[in-house]
Amino acid sequence: MNKTATLISDAHTLFYLTGFETLSPNEREAVLILVNNERYIVTDARYAGYISPRYRLIITQPGEGLFTTIQKICNEKGVSALIYQSDNLTEFEASHLKKGSIETRGETRLFIQERSIKTQNEIGYMRHACEIGDKALFQLIPTIVEGQTEQEIAWRLEKIIREELHAEIAFDPIIAVDAHGAIPHYNTKKGSGMVTNTSTVLIDFGVKYKNYCSDITRMLVAKNAKKDVVSTYQDLYRAQTNTISKMNEWNYLRDADVFCRSELMKLGHPSFPHSTGHGIGLEVHESPRLHAKSNDAKQVGQIFTVEPGIYYEGKWGMRLEDTVVVTPQGSVELLTRFPKELIHLR
Amino acid sequence: MNKTATLISDAHTLFYLTGFETLSPNEREAVLILVNNERYIVTDARYAGYISPRYRLIITQPGEGLFTTIQKICNEKGVSALIYQSDNLTEFEASHLKKGSIETRGETRLFIQERSIKTQNEIGYMRHACEIGDKALFQLIPTIVEGQTEQEIAWRLEKIIREELHAEIAFDPIIAVDAHGAIPHYNTKKGSGMVTNTSTVLIDFGVKYKNYCSDITRMLVAKNAKKDVVSTYQDLYRAQTNTISKMNEWNYLRDADVFCRSELMKLGHPSFPHSTGHGIGLEVHESPRLHAKSNDAKQVGQIFTVEPGIYYEGKWGMRLEDTVVVTPQGSVELLTRFPKELIHLR
Repeated sequence: MNKTATLISDAHTLFYLTGFETLSPNEREAVLILVNNERYIVTDARYAGYISPRYRLIITQPGEGLFTTIQKICNEKGVSALIYQSDNLTEFEASHLKKGSIETRGETRLFIQERSIKTQNEIGYMRHACEIGDKALFQLIPTIVEGQTEQEIAWRLEKIIREELHAEIAFDPIIAVDAHGAIPHYNTKKGSGMVTNTSTVLIDFGVKYKNYCSDITRMLVAKNAKKDVVSTYQDLYRAQTNTISKMNEWNYLRDADVFCRSELMKLGHPSFPHSTGHGIGLEVHESPRLHAKSNDAKQVGQIFTVEPGIYYEGKWGMRLEDTVVVTPQGSVELLTRFPKELIHLR
Repeated sequence: MNKTATLISDAHTLFYLTGFETLSPNEREAVLILVNNERYIVTDARYAGYISPRYRLIITQPGEGLFTTIQKICNEKGVSALIYQSDNLTEFEASHLKKGSIETRGETRLFIQERSIKTQNEIGYMRHACEIGDKALFQLIPTIVEGQTEQEIAWRLEKIIREELHAEIAFDPIIAVDAHGAIPHYNTKKGSGMVTNTSTVLIDFGVKYKNYCSDITRMLVAKNAKKDVVSTYQDLYRAQTNTISKMNEWNYLRDADVFCRSELMKLGHPSFPHSTGHGIGLEVHESPRLHAKSNDAKQVGQIFTVEPGIYYEGKWGMRLEDTVVVTPQGSVELLTRFPKELIHLR
């Protein structure tokens, strides 16, 4: 009698399958065991009250580790083979698991494909997250004036999302002025930029609603910004919108990356040091990828970003990003609807 | 000629050794290679501008993964053996590393002991983080009145820390009213508790200053709280303060856990479902541990929390927590100085 169970250790997939949420997804606070049609969540006594019909809760004994309890349950349930996430467990954790009498097998990308195809419910949550983001931008932008720091603007955006729109932020907002905009992962919290009358201002942020994330980037320019900034934005705008409107022509998402990147390079702009987009859902970055080396096929119900950038290191940088969903017709629909024209500061 | 290099993949130790900080510590955005006296940070082009005399930056080629670049550098530098963090790399990542021609060896707890002993600089940062936390509490507490929700109070606390005291939060504040206080990892963001005229209110939060964290918990009661809540708090108060004042008597931190827990159990209270404390620094939870099964010796310069709790599931719960540093005399000094007496709401 061979009974195989599956161990889910990553917190997002655990939530996806059960709705169970720990306080610190990056600490190993809980795991899920799938065996036959049963779901066991193994966690410690801090979560004893988290009861739900969607799973059975098993609390580790004081001083007994998760991995010992996993072995015990598998033995009790007559499990002879256990599949685990080798792209989530550390090598050290996996070595613990292998010490028991149960045969183990590491697999990668478990439930990644399932998670990348959003249900109608999930699309609804993400549509709402994107709408909240649009509203936040409408409220934020008229308040941005010369003399404000990146950190001030980021904090005001966060307050609008949390205090006025009653949602969460999906990640710390990036507000990047001038040369900071050329650093694709600029850390606003550690920066000291300020809006001047010649500035470019990059705003990249996401909203989280019912655990699902949105992601959007828009560009502002101050009234005395250089003319080549404005004309360069037109190139970016065309490349991004053309990529979105041609999405129905492609079967593989790498084609979107190749097209979008080459559109910009044909006009003499440098290639951007990141992919053209990424899947988004419970995590800000998840499957699929819009990258030249990606093998991800376009599929109905995928939600991903389209976000080319033009970066001139030490000078200025710009990015334009939307979150889109693949429709049954194979085209994509914008979930982020905030206008994409370059925004001129008052 | 055997040249051994060490690969540091966890973001906190990478920051500890180099000051290099990525935007998403939980995504694999950068690794550090230590070879002889040189430090190479391998990352992608998004971080090309992050230059420092403390390390040399190596940017992966487009489409080339971190692990391929690591192999290349090791080959270039004549490295024959590479030590890696088997408690940080996933099994899948480690299997990539092993594919190359370089001998590899997984080790656990690399730099954990070093990080647990704080330098004078680090103690200064953490002292400051704790002081900010004290100030935040002094500002917050007079504003708490009946009818407020947990989420309102948590958000006001966060605003005080970020907007008025110009620091960051170390984790989402836990505000737990009544029975929610009996859930040690209560998720305030998902909760709906409200302060009434009989409530207990648990406030557990941390401040981050220059990447170093503080952690403190204090208890409030409304004016018509049950008398046994007040008397139970006295038991908790005595157990916590006695544990702190007796710390000089113990060589091993497990003794603090055994003592503190048994003090409460002697008085008829239940054992609490977590350790008596945890090391804290760049991470909210790090080495050492104050736990019955811990082998961690007490050492000068360690900073940890002391945080027993008394939890009556479904009824109410309380916890009292300070962050302390081990002095050269082997006793501990409080870094969190906010008064520990039970706070009575107006």
